[in-house]
Amino acid sequence: MPDPIITLTTDFGEASPYVAAMKGVILSINPTARIVDLGHQVPPQDLRHAAHFLAAAIPYFPPSVIHIVVVDPGVGTDRSLLYVEISGHRLLVPDNGCWTALGRLGLPHVRRLTERRYWREPVSNTFHGRDILAPVAAHLSLGIAADQLGPQVAAYVQLQTPVPHFDPQRSLWSGEVAFIDAFGNLISNIPATTLGDGPARIEVNGHPVPRRVRTYGEADPGALVALVSSTGMLEVAVVQGHAANYLNVKVGAPVAVLLID
Amino acid sequence: MPDPIITLTTDFGEASPYVAAMKGVILSINPTARIVDLGHQVPPQDLRHAAHFLAAAIPYFPPSVIHIVVVDPGVGTDRSLLYVEISGHRLLVPDNGCWTALGRLGLPHVRRLTERRYWREPVSNTFHGRDILAPVAAHLSLGIAADQLGPQVAAYVQLQTPVPHFDPQRSLWSGEVAFIDAFGNLISNIPATTLGDGPARIEVNGHPVPRRVRTYGEADPGALVALVSSTGMLEVAVVQGHAANYLNVKVGAPVAVLLID
Amino acid sequence: MPDPIITLTTDFGEASPYVAAMKGVILSINPTARIVDLGHQVPPQDLRHAAHFLAAAIPYFPPSVIHIVVVDPGVGTDRSLLYVEISGHRLLVPDNGCWTALGRLGLPHVRRLTERRYWREPVSNTFHGRDILAPVAAHLSLGIAADQLGPQVAAYVQLQTPVPHFDPQRSLWSGEVAFIDAFGNLISNIPATTLGDGPARIEVNGHPVPRRVRTYGEADPGALVALVSSTGMLEVAVVQGHAANYLNVKVGAPVAVLLID
Repeated sequence: MPDPIITLTTDFGEASPYVAAMKGVILSINPTARIVDLGHQVPPQDLRHAAHFLAAAIPYFPPSVIHIVVVDPGVGTDRSLLYVEISGHRLLVPDNGCWTALGRLGLPHVRRLTERRYWREPVSNTFHGRDILAPVAAHLSLGIAADQLGPQVAAYVQLQTPVPHFDPQRSLWSGEVAFIDAFGNLISNIPATTLGDGPARIEVNGHPVPRRVRTYGEADPGALVALVSSTGMLEVAVVQGHAANYLNVKVGAPVAVLLID
Repeated sequence: MPDPIITLTTDFGEASPYVAAMKGVILSINPTARIVDLGHQVPPQDLRHAAHFLAAAIPYFPPSVIHIVVVDPGVGTDRSLLYVEISGHRLLVPDNGCWTALGRLGLPHVRRLTERRYWREPVSNTFHGRDILAPVAAHLSLGIAADQLGPQVAAYVQLQTPVPHFDPQRSLWSGEVAFIDAFGNLISNIPATTLGDGPARIEVNGHPVPRRVRTYGEADPGALVALVSSTGMLEVAVVQGHAANYLNVKVGAPVAVLLID
Repeated sequence: MPDPIITLTTDFGEASPYVAAMKGVILSINPTARIVDLGHQVPPQDLRHAAHFLAAAIPYFPPSVIHIVVVDPGVGTDRSLLYVEISGHRLLVPDNGCWTALGRLGLPHVRRLTERRYWREPVSNTFHGRDILAPVAAHLSLGIAADQLGPQVAAYVQLQTPVPHFDPQRSLWSGEVAFIDAFGNLISNIPATTLGDGPARIEVNGHPVPRRVRTYGEADPGALVALVSSTGMLEVAVVQGHAANYLNVKVGAPVAVLLID
């Protein structure tokens, strides 16, 4: 049996000692835990970014890994903390919807964390990642059963993200930029499969995207291109450039695709 | 026995290959070492930031973990490198006071690193993290005794950080901003316990903080609030905002608390 | 036998989920793999930066470690992906020359990755780090032989980096800034040994560097100094400052050294 794995995804940045404190708490309870950083640069309290991040990362992990997520604008209020099991993946998350995009993987089993004997005392009002999620993850990694953590719940916050719309009369998909990666590539919320192979006119924020390619290197540096993202969505990129800066767009900018037969 | 853990805290950033080189040196000497990153975004040569980071992170770790700290403006001069054991925690640090805030944990046992047989040769003049601290940590993790590293010393550099002042006649606490985290929250050097539960007038840099809350989510987004930080200090924050930018303050900005009976 | 180690070096940043996805793929194939982050802040698609990073990091690792490098502007084109073994170090890299500065370590053994049974299906056009390099690394860490990955090749892309020039008549070395680290220190491509111990006039971008020191702390804060970098090259730094900003120079800026006898 390999040593248990606990991953961390936060909006803490690395200049602050918060990630380090969580690692210390985990290792104090289970010195054999293997901690894997997924990313600590989620923009502060940006639930939509966190949701996209998790949806594009968690499915690649083997079941049984424990994932802690701390993007938690509601810390210390009466929002719950949850244990979620979905298609074998185990998450410890604030009840703010950051994980619900994973719902496509299967039916989630959700528990509310209530059993204080697995928490770190005293519990602060501002850092439940350190005082609740980290110790609960460590105890889970030692083999306690999930039903020890608290009662199963059927209701939880669902993150509503805009859904693309198809107008069959105009053969027009209307969606938006759902995520901007570190290269400035614009990942839309329009599945690439819906476009088919026929010609299409693609616009981001009203700006036409002149060319569709299979991959970045097919066009010259500086070219604005549309392609299929690594997660299967329509993506707009500037080859070896930064599309978000070039088009001056943010998450939420409209993306339109006019199918032409 | 779990494999030994060595943590790294530096001001190297991640774009430079320096952290990677240290990890290579450690694993070359002890391939079973488990390396845990605490953070590599300490602002360059900022000892006060490093001191706050360590004070807020190290106490959460189990004893026996070995912590390497490389924030080292004096590298290559005659400043010493130290092995510090304090309340079971083991640190390898430059003798610049970055660790002395941990003194509240107990009496430190301090040695000066002098035994070159545990170093990497040739020792450069500019990168003792790679050439001295990393190999010494790796050898320690293999089980050599600390007294092999060099002689015990009683004198070492103490980092002087401003101490808050209480004026009993005016019932006035005067302190300052000691740390600004990635959210822009201002962590002061005034322990929250000293404020009691009575009313108080709080100012940062002369700017009044209108409201005291238990946690961020109690006030509306954009509200300027005072609360107890996760380390028990008086903290000033903008809910879902960035207090440091909003108030235009830096570490060292004055914080005043007038107790009202 | 310690668990196998796989390192990751990318230009993905940490706000994107790409590094996380690669870690998931690795652990899904080999749950005992120990993943070590070398750095994810290589500037996007900056092969020269990546080459310097790897040359300054890989040699410190023990042999048998597997290093994945994803700085890959040509992803999805007909550029190859390579397995490289050099002086015991094992790398999985795009064929873009990012690794060829390691050629000084010995004769490389190079294979082209062609055996799709070790890949993740379906293979995307834009993320071969996740779909090819990560799964191949995981399979390698499970013990498959390198000759299972694809045929040996003798030709591969060599990264051409400027070589310093010596004019014996004028006793003048002409080189350039090869790397700028997180402190703003300028690492040149002129080996420090070539300077000898005699007097020399040093200029960066025409700006004279008034003083040579053994280490930063020998001069006052703010002083512009020349010294030997931790990798043995001529380095120019501002003590406790940022030489790149101070001199307003970028990688490629000319560095001249006039030897004076």
